[in-house]
Amino acid sequence: MTQIRRLVIDVLKPHEPPTLEFAQQVSEADSVAGVNASVIELDREVQNVKFTIEGESVEYEAIEAIIENAGGSIHSVDQIACGEYIVEDAPTPQD
Amino acid sequence: MTQIRRLVIDVLKPHEPPTLEFAQQVSEADSVAGVNASVIELDREVQNVKFTIEGESVEYEAIEAIIENAGGSIHSVDQIACGEYIVEDAPTPQD
Amino acid sequence: MTQIRRLVIDVLKPHEPPTLEFAQQVSEADSVAGVNASVIELDREVQNVKFTIEGESVEYEAIEAIIENAGGSIHSVDQIACGEYIVEDAPTPQD
Amino acid sequence: MTQIRRLVIDVLKPHEPPTLEFAQQVSEADSVAGVNASVIELDREVQNVKFTIEGESVEYEAIEAIIENAGGSIHSVDQIACGEYIVEDAPTPQD
Amino acid sequence: MTQIRRLVIDVLKPHEPPTLEFAQQVSEADSVAGVNASVIELDREVQNVKFTIEGESVEYEAIEAIIENAGGSIHSVDQIACGEYIVEDAPTPQD
Amino acid sequence: MTQIRRLVIDVLKPHEPPTLEFAQQVSEADSVAGVNASVIELDREVQNVKFTIEGESVEYEAIEAIIENAGGSIHSVDQIACGEYIVEDAPTPQD
Amino acid sequence: MTQIRRLVIDVLKPHEPPTLEFAQQVSEADSVAGVNASVIELDREVQNVKFTIEGESVEYEAIEAIIENAGGSIHSVDQIACGEYIVEDAPTPQD
Repeated sequence: MTQIRRLVIDVLKPHEPPTLEFAQQVSEADSVAGVNASVIELDREVQNVKFTIEGESVEYEAIEAIIENAGGSIHSVDQIACGEYIVEDAPTPQD
Repeated sequence: MTQIRRLVIDVLKPHEPPTLEFAQQVSEADSVAGVNASVIELDREVQNVKFTIEGESVEYEAIEAIIENAGGSIHSVDQIACGEYIVEDAPTPQD
Repeated sequence: MTQIRRLVIDVLKPHEPPTLEFAQQVSEADSVAGVNASVIELDREVQNVKFTIEGESVEYEAIEAIIENAGGSIHSVDQIACGEYIVEDAPTPQD
Repeated sequence: MTQIRRLVIDVLKPHEPPTLEFAQQVSEADSVAGVNASVIELDREVQNVKFTIEGESVEYEAIEAIIENAGGSIHSVDQIACGEYIVEDAPTPQD
Repeated sequence: MTQIRRLVIDVLKPHEPPTLEFAQQVSEADSVAGVNASVIELDREVQNVKFTIEGESVEYEAIEAIIENAGGSIHSVDQIACGEYIVEDAPTPQD
Repeated sequence: MTQIRRLVIDVLKPHEPPTLEFAQQVSEADSVAGVNASVIELDREVQNVKFTIEGESVEYEAIEAIIENAGGSIHSVDQIACGEYIVEDAPTPQD
Repeated sequence: MTQIRRLVIDVLKPHEPPTLEFAQQVSEADSVAGVNASVIELDREVQNVKFTIEGESVEYEAIEAIIENAGGSIHSVDQIACGEYIVEDAPTPQD
C-alpha cells in the first residue's frame, strides 16, 4: 500500500492522561515524524482533540492502538494524504 | 490527450472499506503521485469524501474503476487541471 | 498583438462530453500550457464551468472553436492577462 | 516625473471591440509590461472593466488615448504606484 | 532622528491636479523610493486618497509641502514605520 | 518521550508580576527557544494570556513551575506539536 | 533575562508631539531596531496608537520613559515575543 503522509483524526479522550502525554505517545509510533494535537472542546468527562499526524508512512493501526491503550478512541478520520508527497485539499467552488 | 495534473472529485462511498484504505487504493493507480481525501459528510449509509488527486498524468478511468470496485461512486468531477503544470483557479470578481 | 498569458472564461457546456475530456481538448490548443476547469454549477441540461487558461500566447479563437466543436459556448470572458508576464488583479478599496 | 509602475483604472467600454482585444491594445502601449483586465459588471450597453496595468513607466495619456480610440472611457483612476518599485497599499486599522 | 521607512497618510485633495500627477509629485521628494496612492472616496469637491509612502528616510515635511502646494492637505497620519527596516503591524487578539 | 516543539497554553495570571516579566521568566526555561505571550482578556483581578512556546524540547513541568511560582496557573493546554518538526494543524472541512 | 524581540503596546498620547515624532523617539531607544505605529483611534484630547516594536533586546523601561517624557502613557501591553527569535501567536480553535 502507498504511504500515508498525513492523517487527521478526531479523538475523544479522557482527561487522564493529559493531552500532552497523549500526543507524545502518538508521536512515538515508528512511522510518525510529528504530531499536532489541537484541543477542540472539553466537557467534564472527555476532551475532543484534533490530531494532525505526519510522517513518511503513518500506520493507522499503530496510532489507533496507542490511542485506545491510553483510554481514548478515534471518533472520525477527517483527512488522509497518501502517496509520494502531501497533497493539499484544493479549494473549489463547491467547498 | 494532454496530461491531467490534478483531479478533484466528490465521491460517495460506503463505510467499508474505511476511507483510509479507499484513499490508499486510489493512490496506487499508476499515474497518481498523491491523494488528499477529506471527509465532507457522513450519514448512516454513506460517506461523502472530497478527493484531490495529483500526478504526472492522472487517468480518470483507472480512478473510477478503483472507486467502483471498492463499492463507491464518483458523484461529481469538481475540478480538472491539465497541461504542462497545475494551473490554479484564478480569483475573479465573478466568484 | 501582445500575447495573452491568462484567459478566464465562463463556459456553458452540455453534460457530454464530460468536463474532463472538454478540459483536455481545450488544453490541446497550441498556445495553451495548462488549463484549470472548475465546475461552478450544473442543472439537468448544462454545466457552468469556469476555465482558467494559461500559456505563452493563448489564442482565443482556437479555444472558442474547440469549445463550440464540443457543443459548448463561451458565456463570458471574465479576465484577461496579457503582456510580458501574468499581471494579477491588484486589490483596491473599490473592490 | 517619476515612473508609474502600476495603474489601476476603472474603464467603461462598449461591447465592441471585445474586452480581450481592448486589453491587448492597452498592453501594446510602449511603456506597458502587462495588463490584467477583470470584468466587473456588464449591462446591455456597456461593460465595466477593472484594468491593472504594470510596466517600467506606464504613460497614462497613451493608455487613455488607446481606450478612447477603442470607444471606451476611463471612469476612475483607483490606484497609482510610482517610484523605484511597486509599493503596495499597507493595511491599517482605518481600512 | 531615526529614518522613516513607511508613512501612511490620508490625504484630502481637490480634483485638480489629478491623483496621478499628485502621486508623482509626492514620489519626487528626495527621500521617497515609491508611493502607492489608493483612492478611498470622492465627492464633487474633494477626493480622499490613502498614500503609502516608502523610502530610506521619508521626510514628512517635504511630503506635506508638496501636498499643500498641490492644493491638498494631510487629513491624518495613519501609520509610521521607522528604524532599520519596515516593521509590520503585528496582529493581536485586541485588533 | 518525543520532544515537544510547540506548546500553546492559556494562562491565568495576577496583574503582578507584569506579563512582560512573566513571559521572560517562561522563556528562561532551559528547553525554550522563544515565547509569544498575547493578552486575551483582563479584568480587575486576573489576566488571561495565551502563550505560544517553542523550542527543541519544551518541558511542560518546567513551564508550569515557573508560571505557578509567579502566581499564575495554566488554565488549559490548547495545542501541542511534538516530534521531529512543528506540524501545523491541517485545515479540514470539519473545522 | 531573555531578550524581548517584539513588544506590542497600546499607547495613549496627546496630539502633541505628533505620532510621527513620537514613533521616531521610541525607535531611538538603544535596543530598538524598528517601530510600527498604527493609529487606532483619536478624539479631541488623545490618540490611541498601537506600537509594534522590534529589536534584538527591546527594553520596556526605556520605551516607557520615552513615552511618558513625551506626555503619553502605556495603556496596555498586548503582546510580548522573547527568546532567540520572534515566535508568532499560533492560531488554535480557541481563538
